[in-house]
Amino acid sequence: METPATLTTRPENPKTQTSYVRIRLATQSDVPHIHKLIHQMAVFEGLTHLFATTESSLSSTLFKSPPFTALTVFILEVSLSPFPPTQPDPTLSQFTPVETRVILNSPIVDEDYETFRVVGEECLDAVVAGHVFFFPNYPSFLSKPGFYVEDLFVREPYRRRGFGKMLLSAVAEQAVKMGFARVDWMVLGWNVNAIKFYEEMGAEVLEGWRPCRLGGDALQAYANK
Amino acid sequence: METPATLTTRPENPKTQTSYVRIRLATQSDVPHIHKLIHQMAVFEGLTHLFATTESSLSSTLFKSPPFTALTVFILEVSLSPFPPTQPDPTLSQFTPVETRVILNSPIVDEDYETFRVVGEECLDAVVAGHVFFFPNYPSFLSKPGFYVEDLFVREPYRRRGFGKMLLSAVAEQAVKMGFARVDWMVLGWNVNAIKFYEEMGAEVLEGWRPCRLGGDALQAYANK
Repeated sequence: METPATLTTRPENPKTQTSYVRIRLATQSDVPHIHKLIHQMAVFEGLTHLFATTESSLSSTLFKSPPFTALTVFILEVSLSPFPPTQPDPTLSQFTPVETRVILNSPIVDEDYETFRVVGEECLDAVVAGHVFFFPNYPSFLSKPGFYVEDLFVREPYRRRGFGKMLLSAVAEQAVKMGFARVDWMVLGWNVNAIKFYEEMGAEVLEGWRPCRLGGDALQAYANK
Repeated sequence: METPATLTTRPENPKTQTSYVRIRLATQSDVPHIHKLIHQMAVFEGLTHLFATTESSLSSTLFKSPPFTALTVFILEVSLSPFPPTQPDPTLSQFTPVETRVILNSPIVDEDYETFRVVGEECLDAVVAGHVFFFPNYPSFLSKPGFYVEDLFVREPYRRRGFGKMLLSAVAEQAVKMGFARVDWMVLGWNVNAIKFYEEMGAEVLEGWRPCRLGGDALQAYANK
């Protein structure tokens, strides 16, 4: 199924590369890729000392509730050939995968191609390029649900191509479709590129708040108090 | 049902006041009080320009899912007489209301007593003194659920009595009981009393993060993109 080029309409030339992009709901078979994506994000953020996720802990906690009612993961795939037609899933009438054709102004060199290749699909050259991890929240001043984006990640070779914006836009579009009030997330203050990117998308980036966490032994101390 | 004094065992004297405290799950009949509590919190935070909650919007969004699977509200009640025995709710086996007797070292003068009085209970002098509003989140570096505390509020006459700690402890205890990894929340950086209070409870108060929000017209712009 050919989809229209939405990022650019320039005619193809040797320096460009036509790619097909799809954003779809993750399934259990994506767990090994999701695990590696979250780890790469921890490396990027310099927070590997906090990384304790395993494929097994992901498998046992993801996909336990219908999408959008709890934890939800979108996967971003990139392919040099069109994606096969998506079979409509009657249980997921709230969501249609986002598919688009993009003309990239330079080819992507992906050294982790084999690691992130999508196996078992008709579209054999597709690769997982990023993900967004989100769940409902509830801003009490609005008393309407929203989405909280826990992770938004695009692998290094795929950055600065508009893919991060596509992922976050897919969450925003879903929020609007469901009548949700807001999309919230957090950014590290030193990540000025990300802050600029979010502000250009229309987000407010607030100051003056500090996250608080009670975990590990400090949390266990509250058992049966 | 008399419960043991856990905050102090000093003998009663004319300057002290014995009170009974209960933390229970909110129900639909608490909505008018919850609405007023969230508004008082907005006033305290200097954020009334962001307050858009109505009793109707609360009624139509709260109590739609079993407690702890989505948005959950605990109500803190204070009474001069013991609470009647709680009827066990077989659908809520995961949670037992917290009840305790406390000896306050000065009586509470509550000018909003009539507004926050609990109507329709056998315990006719009980008053709603605070609330905590929370829902599951999912720290992806741990791949285990946690709780995110959206609001923690104690009305002014009831502060500096240990009630805020009781509310947050009830959430922490519930998190441990359910095998959750963490309790997260946000604090305003200027609220040094709150930061000190959280750190004393064992929480980490992080620096360097900024909350991002996409809402209102900026969010609507993503509809059907």
